[in-house]
Amino acid sequence: MQEKLFLLFELIGTVAFAVSGAMVALSKKMDIFGVAVLGLVTAVGGGAIRDIVLGITPPATFRNPIYASVAIFVSLLVFIPAVRRFLFDKSGVYEKILLVMDSLGLGIFTVVGIESAYLSGFGDSIFLLIFVGVITGVGGGIIRDVLAQDTPAVLVRHFYATASIIGAVVCIILWNFFGQSAAIIGGAGTVLLLRLMAAHFHWSLPKAK
Amino acid sequence: MQEKLFLLFELIGTVAFAVSGAMVALSKKMDIFGVAVLGLVTAVGGGAIRDIVLGITPPATFRNPIYASVAIFVSLLVFIPAVRRFLFDKSGVYEKILLVMDSLGLGIFTVVGIESAYLSGFGDSIFLLIFVGVITGVGGGIIRDVLAQDTPAVLVRHFYATASIIGAVVCIILWNFFGQSAAIIGGAGTVLLLRLMAAHFHWSLPKAK
Amino acid sequence: MQEKLFLLFELIGTVAFAVSGAMVALSKKMDIFGVAVLGLVTAVGGGAIRDIVLGITPPATFRNPIYASVAIFVSLLVFIPAVRRFLFDKSGVYEKILLVMDSLGLGIFTVVGIESAYLSGFGDSIFLLIFVGVITGVGGGIIRDVLAQDTPAVLVRHFYATASIIGAVVCIILWNFFGQSAAIIGGAGTVLLLRLMAAHFHWSLPKAK
Repeated sequence: MQEKLFLLFELIGTVAFAVSGAMVALSKKMDIFGVAVLGLVTAVGGGAIRDIVLGITPPATFRNPIYASVAIFVSLLVFIPAVRRFLFDKSGVYEKILLVMDSLGLGIFTVVGIESAYLSGFGDSIFLLIFVGVITGVGGGIIRDVLAQDTPAVLVRHFYATASIIGAVVCIILWNFFGQSAAIIGGAGTVLLLRLMAAHFHWSLPKAK
Repeated sequence: MQEKLFLLFELIGTVAFAVSGAMVALSKKMDIFGVAVLGLVTAVGGGAIRDIVLGITPPATFRNPIYASVAIFVSLLVFIPAVRRFLFDKSGVYEKILLVMDSLGLGIFTVVGIESAYLSGFGDSIFLLIFVGVITGVGGGIIRDVLAQDTPAVLVRHFYATASIIGAVVCIILWNFFGQSAAIIGGAGTVLLLRLMAAHFHWSLPKAK
Repeated sequence: MQEKLFLLFELIGTVAFAVSGAMVALSKKMDIFGVAVLGLVTAVGGGAIRDIVLGITPPATFRNPIYASVAIFVSLLVFIPAVRRFLFDKSGVYEKILLVMDSLGLGIFTVVGIESAYLSGFGDSIFLLIFVGVITGVGGGIIRDVLAQDTPAVLVRHFYATASIIGAVVCIILWNFFGQSAAIIGGAGTVLLLRLMAAHFHWSLPKAK
């Protein structure tokens, strides 16, 4: 049961990040293969980095075809005219969908990273749990932005890394008091909520003058 | 005998990717060290990523100096005036040589990656074999393009990742029916042929409007 | 005693690279989180790559919070008005501090990488020692430059990779004849000296015309 919840959550994160990668590729006028590749690396990149960091080789994403298959399939959906019309023709919808998908992926992959570290026996180091969660969360997006030659979201979007860190801490606390399911949903929900609130209220952070 | 064929093939791929890295560095007006570094990372990057993904640490390229030595030596050859004149002075030759070298490297490293996975005991998972082959093939070029601040070939060149995937499948089929040597030559040849045909016939792929 | 020297040296390198990352982030007008993240990845990136290459997982920087804590703390210091005024208001000071910090980080992380390889039992392969030292030295700066969308220093700054290679060789020679402490100080000092001399005397290297 819990394994299924775990897999389902990873698949939702995979879909969210694949869509965000495919949309960035489309906005850069890439062809169908560029869209598939960018959707794929955005979706599986964070998990691959996490597994390599934890010494789990080959990474799960290289052994189980389900993640890559889902990511490529979802990326290609943006080529269906109706989907594309929906995404791009209404003013402002593109940015909103991209924000929600990216935030959802960030939240889910953050908690999935922490879960992997727990299940691999690294549950005793809170610092490692947070670090691995954040790397899993931001890794795919960093690869997407570097390949697409955008400034990485993690450096310029308010509360991007911070949302992931706060969500990671919430996840770890919930894990210890209420168990795995509460930790997954509470941690990912925290990240999503923080990101949406930051965007909605235009939270701004100190800059050096 | 087969180990020697294996090594020879890896060295040809190393030479091809080193030349492609060095030529990109030259076109960006880098000095002799930039040329050597970009040639080196293009040549050894894919194999290093592959070994890390397979859990082979330190990667072969860090243990055996032959790959790095060959890559640096070949990169520096472009500083010989006669070589440079040949590469750059005749109209259109530069693009053609870069295309052939890059395609040859892509083909060879794709099959070499599959071979490494087979020899490391991962031959039972076709999906893993393909994934590792493609990562080995495209990894060095991605590092080259990211460092040189170009859009990665894998995202914008027609049939780049696809040629590698098709070549990987051909290689795995040949491996099972005709053995290692046929797989190496047939797989790499397929990639090279597909890339050259795509360039020659200007195959173009669907883009979203 | 020697472990303490080892840790102290790593922390000095961490501070130097964190400052260099934070200063690049400031010059790109990033907010406080961007500054912290870029300072952090510059400081811990090289060591993380080294540990993954050597098969030490999770990397030390993920297990021991001291490196990340120091890097983030130091990065945030640039937000103190007095520090910022000192760094940015006097003409030319910024470039000089960035040069010294970056060169110091390069030198220290080069020798620390070699030391890690020795202590992990890879002391018999001189080539591997050099390779791992250089990767540790240049890794953090490459990640910094790629994320900040600058051309990587390793490709365009004179004697950057070369200084690291020469320092690595000096470190290995000193290690064998005079022991660990002499190797650390002599190797890192060589890198720092070469970089400063290259900058001061405007050493220039052959370019292809």
